[in-house]
Amino acid sequence: MTLPLLTRRGDTLRYDRERGLVLVLDRRRYPRETIFVECADVEAVARAIETMVVQGGPPLAYVAGYGLALAARAWKGRPSDAQRAAIIQAGERLRRTRPTADDLRQIVEQGLARADAAILDGADAETALADFIDAEVRRGDKVAERCGRNAAGLLAEGDRILTHCFAGAALNWMLYVAHVEQNKQLRLYPTETRPYLQGARLTAHQAIEIGVPVTLLTDNMPGFCFARGMFDVYITAADRIALDGSIANKVGTYQYAVLARRHRVPFYVLGYDGPDPATPSGADIPIEERDPSEVLEFAGIRTAPEGAGAYYPAFDVTPPDLISAIVTNRGIYRPERIADYLGDGEAPIDIIPLTQ
Amino acid sequence: MTLPLLTRRGDTLRYDRERGLVLVLDRRRYPRETIFVECADVEAVARAIETMVVQGGPPLAYVAGYGLALAARAWKGRPSDAQRAAIIQAGERLRRTRPTADDLRQIVEQGLARADAAILDGADAETALADFIDAEVRRGDKVAERCGRNAAGLLAEGDRILTHCFAGAALNWMLYVAHVEQNKQLRLYPTETRPYLQGARLTAHQAIEIGVPVTLLTDNMPGFCFARGMFDVYITAADRIALDGSIANKVGTYQYAVLARRHRVPFYVLGYDGPDPATPSGADIPIEERDPSEVLEFAGIRTAPEGAGAYYPAFDVTPPDLISAIVTNRGIYRPERIADYLGDGEAPIDIIPLTQ
Repeated sequence: MTLPLLTRRGDTLRYDRERGLVLVLDRRRYPRETIFVECADVEAVARAIETMVVQGGPPLAYVAGYGLALAARAWKGRPSDAQRAAIIQAGERLRRTRPTADDLRQIVEQGLARADAAILDGADAETALADFIDAEVRRGDKVAERCGRNAAGLLAEGDRILTHCFAGAALNWMLYVAHVEQNKQLRLYPTETRPYLQGARLTAHQAIEIGVPVTLLTDNMPGFCFARGMFDVYITAADRIALDGSIANKVGTYQYAVLARRHRVPFYVLGYDGPDPATPSGADIPIEERDPSEVLEFAGIRTAPEGAGAYYPAFDVTPPDLISAIVTNRGIYRPERIADYLGDGEAPIDIIPLTQ
Repeated sequence: MTLPLLTRRGDTLRYDRERGLVLVLDRRRYPRETIFVECADVEAVARAIETMVVQGGPPLAYVAGYGLALAARAWKGRPSDAQRAAIIQAGERLRRTRPTADDLRQIVEQGLARADAAILDGADAETALADFIDAEVRRGDKVAERCGRNAAGLLAEGDRILTHCFAGAALNWMLYVAHVEQNKQLRLYPTETRPYLQGARLTAHQAIEIGVPVTLLTDNMPGFCFARGMFDVYITAADRIALDGSIANKVGTYQYAVLARRHRVPFYVLGYDGPDPATPSGADIPIEERDPSEVLEFAGIRTAPEGAGAYYPAFDVTPPDLISAIVTNRGIYRPERIADYLGDGEAPIDIIPLTQ
């Protein structure tokens, strides 16, 4: 039993220091095809993020970080002011790609600081940036494993799990630990997650590889299934967690959270490394609106008639009163206490017993 | 300004008495193509209903009724017992096609009675059945117009309407009367309605033809839009209305009704000719489960990985406490009073003023 490909981010994206390329698994084609897109400059990296070659808060942030390394490489040997200006400009372009997840902003900010320090020291900014992101990928993988292990402890034998979109490496770890290590029988119900079908493609595939049986639903079916008592728990990731315990996640997360509460099913959020210290409340999270043409078609095939408009908010915000707990690498928090994460240090705190 | 094609059912389905064929608009291909499927026997009619060549409670019931006429034609001139047995057997096959909507059961029951009477009189059962369904189509068109006109009275200038699936001819009438006759500016937000995309194809197209602007959503987006205050009213049809005011409709209807209530948006049901007298409560409505492979693919293209299962409940049940009013041809009812419809006769009753 090996963990599926999307568990370790280093297997899906990397920086080729010899050739000066960012290699990114094309998640639009995976798992049907396992193809890596090669990005040779900042603009190519930005486009890969915007067109969802890569998805998920941390993975797309890592790709952006490697994009900064490409900028440093292109300006190597120039005057330090010019190097800095080029890297800052690259950071601005990359930050504009997707506004909702906080990982991207944090990685770019920290990357710029590392590059600055390297340039001041007369060191190589490309190497400093690539080293920094490599370390972030390793750190993020540990966060995901720890978060997933904490979440596995919340699952009971026989649990039927509703999930939305692809909750990332921590979901893989949660399923792996609960099913393979702890031998719990589980069933996963992913929504297909239109328009990009992350649920039908990524989530379903990863669960099947782990050995967890999958029953796929379209995005209009969870309400019926809740009413029929078909779910024991609802679990998603979060693209950003605010200090008030609100979360932003793939559009649809909120409507299923409302239904989970109505039907007394707990909603756990895989919160990875916790809240964004710069986001006080859910109202402060910018919601990305993507090209509405993606709603009018399916895999490039037009579904709506001529003359139809569309709307494509990519995320929504779920308030803390609909969330049972946020599961992080440091432990499990009631949403209204998630700001405590920032002071709790690296040692896992005790898991808080949860009652709905 | 002509009304769009799906407004008058006689334009989308008919019985060809000369050739002995049921002609049915293929709603899977419409509006991209306007093609009529020709059904020459009962089994072909049953398959057309099962594979959703035709959809919507009344239209598929009419097609089934014409299917009975085909059975009568095939057994014309035989002993009356053999004729009756063949028509009853056809009725059983046709009733099995789709269990949730009540129109089908009622049309088949009434059709069998008409055929019996004709056979007892020594008259032609095929003609009796075709005449009966022709009259039902005309009656149903009047019901739809009356229901739509009553619903138009509930719409205010500037209303932004969420709808799910295709609410049929009454929706067309509602939009036509409110927008064209009463000159109200409206905007319709149809969900695309996976897996068959009735919203993206049928609803969007009909509204555009009437001149109402359309903003398409995927099925995971209404929750976000409710939270943003983007809807003034939520309107769907019902495949069956129980005497307790529960309604069955396309899966997804319930989850948006829960959200409408949470966000204080009224939910109106286009209830056509009222409740099914044989269905006391929502719990008595059988929910059709269709072939789950339809969830695993999109327009014939496989979307889910090998090994994934799926679940496809085609309808869900919304309880009366989530419904603001049921709009019928006879007037507008609070859901808990819908059984009054059966005693209210044909004259439209006063419209009950509604406050959320």
